[in-house]
Amino acid sequence: MPSATGTPAPGRIPTRDRILYASAELFRRQGYAGTGLKQIATEARAPFGSVYHFFPGGKEQLAADVLRTGGRFFLALYEAIAGAAPDLPTAVGDFFAGAAQTLEATDYADACPIATVAGEIASTHELLRQATADVFESWLSAVERDAVAAGVPPERARPLALSVLAVLEGAFLLSRSLRTTEPMAACADAAVALVRAALTEGPTKSEATI
Amino acid sequence: MPSATGTPAPGRIPTRDRILYASAELFRRQGYAGTGLKQIATEARAPFGSVYHFFPGGKEQLAADVLRTGGRFFLALYEAIAGAAPDLPTAVGDFFAGAAQTLEATDYADACPIATVAGEIASTHELLRQATADVFESWLSAVERDAVAAGVPPERARPLALSVLAVLEGAFLLSRSLRTTEPMAACADAAVALVRAALTEGPTKSEATI
Repeated sequence: MPSATGTPAPGRIPTRDRILYASAELFRRQGYAGTGLKQIATEARAPFGSVYHFFPGGKEQLAADVLRTGGRFFLALYEAIAGAAPDLPTAVGDFFAGAAQTLEATDYADACPIATVAGEIASTHELLRQATADVFESWLSAVERDAVAAGVPPERARPLALSVLAVLEGAFLLSRSLRTTEPMAACADAAVALVRAALTEGPTKSEATI
Repeated sequence: MPSATGTPAPGRIPTRDRILYASAELFRRQGYAGTGLKQIATEARAPFGSVYHFFPGGKEQLAADVLRTGGRFFLALYEAIAGAAPDLPTAVGDFFAGAAQTLEATDYADACPIATVAGEIASTHELLRQATADVFESWLSAVERDAVAAGVPPERARPLALSVLAVLEGAFLLSRSLRTTEPMAACADAAVALVRAALTEGPTKSEATI
C-alpha cells in the first residue's frame, strides 16, 4: 500500500533514494523545522539509523541534498516541456498548466520543490540558503538561455527569467493558500504576456536611450 | 537597548502587543514550526505565562492573530503608498521600491508578513491557512478596486491583482534566497508593465471574442 505521500514501497528503490524522496515530499509540504528525522525514516520505510548512515551531517545535510535533487528534477521537467513546445511562450504556458494540474492532483500539497524551505530558512540556515540560491540560479540560467535563443535581447533575458520565475513562485503560494488554481491560471497569462512583450519590444527603455 | 529583531522595549507598549510584534518578526524570519513560545516570550520581554494569558489557544491562536494583524498592517502600507501616488503604475512601482529598501535595510530578513508561514502551513494547519487566505484576499480586493478605479476593465482587474501580488511574493522569495534586490527590481518593472498593459489593452482576448 503506498504511503500518504506517495513514497515508493521499499525493496525496489535503494534506501538512500527512499529517504531523499520522502524528505522531499515532507519538506515541501510542511517545511524544514516541522519535519523530523523520525517522520522521514517512517515515511521512507527505512530504519532510523539509516538516515544518519547515508547522511552523516544529519538533517541539514539531508535537506541540502533534497533541495539540490529537487532542483535538478524541476529543471529536467522544464527542459522536457520546453523541448516539446514549438516556442517559448507555449513552453511557459505549458509549464504553468502542468503546475496547476499538479496542485489539483495533490490537493494543493505539491508545488515548487524548494520554495517552502527556501522562505523558511533564508535568514537562519546559510548552508540551505546557498543551496536554494544555486537551484534558483540553475533555473534562471535555463530560462535566460531559451529566451535569448528565442530572440529576446540578451540584456532583457535575465530580468525576464527573474520575473517569470517570481510569478510562478507567487502563483504556487497563492494557489496553495486560496486552494484554487485561479492564481496559477491568471499568472500563466501574465507570464506568457511578459515573454511575448520581451520578444516583441526589443531592448528595455533604459538600454535603448543609452 | 533594542533587541536583535527590533522589538520595542517594554514599558511603553502593552504586553499583548509586544508578544504580537515579536511573534510577527520571528514567524516571518524563521517560520511557524521553527519559532517556540519561549523564544517569543524572551524577544517580547514578557513572562512566559503571559503568552498563554493573552492567547489561551496557544501558538496556533497567536499565529492566526499575528497573520491577520500583519495583513492589516501591510494593507495600510499599500493604501498609504497608493494614496500618495499619482496613478496605479506609480503606486505599484513605489510599493516594490519600498519592498527592496526594506529587504536591504533588514539584511533580507523582513519581507512579506505572512508568506513564510503561508507556504509552511498551507497543507498542515487549516486554521492558519484560512487566515493567510483571508489576508491575501484583502490585499487582492484593494488592488482590484484601485485597478477598476484606474480604468482597468472589471473582468481584468482580479487577474491583474493576482499576477501583481504573485510577482511581489515571488520577488520576496528570490531576493531573500539570492540576497540581492535584483529580483525585486526586475519584478517591479514586470508588475508595472502588467498594470500598464491592463490599462491600455482593454478587455482580455477571451472576453473580447464573446
